[in-house]
Amino acid sequence: MKTLAELAQLLQLKYQGDGQVRLRRVGTLHGAKADEISFLANSNYTKYLASTQAGAVIISPGMIDQFSGNALLADNPYVVFAKVANLFAVNNQQPHCQHPTAVVAATAQVSEDVSLGPLSVVGERSQIGSGSRLAAHVSIAEDVVIGADCEIRTGVKIEAGSRIGDRVIIHPGAVIGADGFGLARDKDGWLKIPQTGVVEIGDDCEIGANTTIDCGAIENTILGQDVRLDNQIQIGHNVVIGDHTVIAGCTAIAGSAVIGKNCMIGGGVGVVGHINICDGVTIQAMALVTHSIKEPGSYSSVSPLQKTSQWRKNAVRTRQLDKLARKINQLEKKIND
Amino acid sequence: MKTLAELAQLLQLKYQGDGQVRLRRVGTLHGAKADEISFLANSNYTKYLASTQAGAVIISPGMIDQFSGNALLADNPYVVFAKVANLFAVNNQQPHCQHPTAVVAATAQVSEDVSLGPLSVVGERSQIGSGSRLAAHVSIAEDVVIGADCEIRTGVKIEAGSRIGDRVIIHPGAVIGADGFGLARDKDGWLKIPQTGVVEIGDDCEIGANTTIDCGAIENTILGQDVRLDNQIQIGHNVVIGDHTVIAGCTAIAGSAVIGKNCMIGGGVGVVGHINICDGVTIQAMALVTHSIKEPGSYSSVSPLQKTSQWRKNAVRTRQLDKLARKINQLEKKIND
Amino acid sequence: MKTLAELAQLLQLKYQGDGQVRLRRVGTLHGAKADEISFLANSNYTKYLASTQAGAVIISPGMIDQFSGNALLADNPYVVFAKVANLFAVNNQQPHCQHPTAVVAATAQVSEDVSLGPLSVVGERSQIGSGSRLAAHVSIAEDVVIGADCEIRTGVKIEAGSRIGDRVIIHPGAVIGADGFGLARDKDGWLKIPQTGVVEIGDDCEIGANTTIDCGAIENTILGQDVRLDNQIQIGHNVVIGDHTVIAGCTAIAGSAVIGKNCMIGGGVGVVGHINICDGVTIQAMALVTHSIKEPGSYSSVSPLQKTSQWRKNAVRTRQLDKLARKINQLEKKIND
Repeated sequence: MKTLAELAQLLQLKYQGDGQVRLRRVGTLHGAKADEISFLANSNYTKYLASTQAGAVIISPGMIDQFSGNALLADNPYVVFAKVANLFAVNNQQPHCQHPTAVVAATAQVSEDVSLGPLSVVGERSQIGSGSRLAAHVSIAEDVVIGADCEIRTGVKIEAGSRIGDRVIIHPGAVIGADGFGLARDKDGWLKIPQTGVVEIGDDCEIGANTTIDCGAIENTILGQDVRLDNQIQIGHNVVIGDHTVIAGCTAIAGSAVIGKNCMIGGGVGVVGHINICDGVTIQAMALVTHSIKEPGSYSSVSPLQKTSQWRKNAVRTRQLDKLARKINQLEKKIND
Repeated sequence: MKTLAELAQLLQLKYQGDGQVRLRRVGTLHGAKADEISFLANSNYTKYLASTQAGAVIISPGMIDQFSGNALLADNPYVVFAKVANLFAVNNQQPHCQHPTAVVAATAQVSEDVSLGPLSVVGERSQIGSGSRLAAHVSIAEDVVIGADCEIRTGVKIEAGSRIGDRVIIHPGAVIGADGFGLARDKDGWLKIPQTGVVEIGDDCEIGANTTIDCGAIENTILGQDVRLDNQIQIGHNVVIGDHTVIAGCTAIAGSAVIGKNCMIGGGVGVVGHINICDGVTIQAMALVTHSIKEPGSYSSVSPLQKTSQWRKNAVRTRQLDKLARKINQLEKKIND
Repeated sequence: MKTLAELAQLLQLKYQGDGQVRLRRVGTLHGAKADEISFLANSNYTKYLASTQAGAVIISPGMIDQFSGNALLADNPYVVFAKVANLFAVNNQQPHCQHPTAVVAATAQVSEDVSLGPLSVVGERSQIGSGSRLAAHVSIAEDVVIGADCEIRTGVKIEAGSRIGDRVIIHPGAVIGADGFGLARDKDGWLKIPQTGVVEIGDDCEIGANTTIDCGAIENTILGQDVRLDNQIQIGHNVVIGDHTVIAGCTAIAGSAVIGKNCMIGGGVGVVGHINICDGVTIQAMALVTHSIKEPGSYSSVSPLQKTSQWRKNAVRTRQLDKLARKINQLEKKIND
């Protein structure tokens, strides 16, 4: 619990109203109670400002004339909300402990201040950095290096040789370092190509639930620093992703694609293999990136949603587009003649 | 094993032929043996009716003149087939038991008639309702509530605070209650927003293998009653899904989307965040829903399949569509002048 | 470690240069060191040939005039690279062992030369063939049959009754034999149809991380021999996939689809249920296959990537395509009149 005045001091911000109001957690404008602090970051929610029961509201100076209640003044209310929420969350963390059913190999290096959940496994020669927490059913294979203060959630699987930085969060069911999809076609069928590279994940990355990141074929698959991956993403072998890039759920990045820094890639996107996407590119949801992108900006490819009855008529024409375009050109010529 | 007459009596239906034929399980029309009961629900399979070896066939009264064998008469043969198959399946259930390698926290409430598979984990203060079954490697975190007669299959992970109704089935590898994807961009990088809501799942829901349902950011992620999710689906934080809605595999629903009751959403669909889909909407496979839908009906968006050689010619024109449309309008004006 | 001359003899190939050079592993042309062997299979990398530090290079006879260093001559350098990489990899395999925390049911048949990882589970009446390796946290349910020399990686879940051939590799987190998505709509809601078929996987198949293959509804879901599935793929109930077919990540195959032999299906593809794809078909990434394909060849369906600003203008026209096409036809008629 913190008072509004304490929060203001901690974050070096100004406040309006009763500095002694006691706040226990964050809440939404329309749902918050008297001991919760809310925020206004999206103009769609301004309508809830008049009636909010929140103990205080994080709000930009430009909006403060519309609100007479307790307020924390912030140029970027969403960022300050994130900081406040983290302040409250830290207090909820459980103490470190190592469950007696954890299976730790003799040559593994696990310091005393590491948490090991029930039935977690740490393989030979693996190292877990100070303050890191492994939840139940986590599997760490051999020769893995995990930095300090990481959170490895339930049932995460980290395969041999992976290297994870500090403060990395890996959500339940994610698989780090499974074999890439490497095959050569011989006369009698497919030959598997051994995948001998590893996965390197930089500091402050976050990997979503059931996301998979394949190890490299020969060299490594690399995530820079502060890369944020949502759930159910597939990262192929030898992909390289630059710092601060964010990827939404269910996106697939094929092998050897290189993605720049500060990119924002929507959900359900596909990126084909062996191409480059430069820094600062935004890809809209469900687009397919089939060639390198050398210019920052926003890119899209899906066909727009229509009623199915209408879609049927238009979709037929999609198949005739080239014919239609040729016909137009012929008509134009006729008319101009 | 049941006789045809017993099945007819249990389901309050009429039958034709030998009521004493003994039936052990269900089968397909073309594959069934003499101790199996089959069904005709799709006219594509009428061709197998003459030669079927099934001991009996579930068939609609309107088709009975085409079949002289043993038959169970049903207005909706597929629904009756489901009921019959469930009657046979119940007999195959194993007795409840708690494996000695299960790890149950001291404060967890697990009654005697709950099954716990090998190496399953139940965290502090979690409650498992009467008759529920947890398979091997299931992880239940802290403060989870699971209702009665649920089936939690192999390696399912249910994170802290999740609330699951009665008779819910969760298939292997599903993750319930992982953190939502909430980030605020500060000068130096991304700030994670603690995800403090939980997941609520109503009675009679079914969650597919490796599907992920994120917990809410502040308020909860909610599935109503009898919601059916296929495999590999991603449900973002604060999504709300209405009763009886069905979603096919690999679909992604982004955060805060609200989906009505009795919707049918195809496989590989994307729904962007913060939009509403009203009751009774059907979304065809792989469509992207980019705006709210206020009218029931069927919606589509994909581009139709073509031979790649033909597709190449037409796809080029997709990029010229606006130019082509303007040219047409100019030509029309010229002609009309 | 092998000398170049030893490799040439093992693979019955010719070599150029110093046969006594000692090679320990494979490497890329631009990254390889003096004890590594590299390959040239893609003309994009010819530029690295002059400066490579590799101890030897696998190269086609047609390119040898461009390279004066140590070389292994191969008509298909990529296939030979795969063979060489496998030769080196075999030496890195760990000895078989059964971890004391593995839980093996009394009636399971697990021979002495099977590896069982920490906390793996083998259910009643299941059989694991000679030389197979189960990693940590693997769950094998009841009545499963696994052939010889399989690799079942971390956290794989194989449900009851599944039948797996010889030399099959299943990557972490994959789920084999979960229930298919079978529902019948009754007045009050959905009735689940018990899924009583199993999954059959032929010899030499490979199943990617977090991929899911559902069991059959009545009959079985079947993968032929040498079928290769990448990560995060969804295979619905009663799907049949022919020998040597390869499917890239995040693709979804709906129930009862039948896919031929030697097909290549791209990433993020959707295949609707109850259709047939003949042998030798290639489907490009993210296409949706909505009808049976009876002719071999390459098929596509996505809309091409555009800058979002340009895409907006063109996408509006997609919805007007049928109107535009009709207008063109009218104009044509007017002009011809």
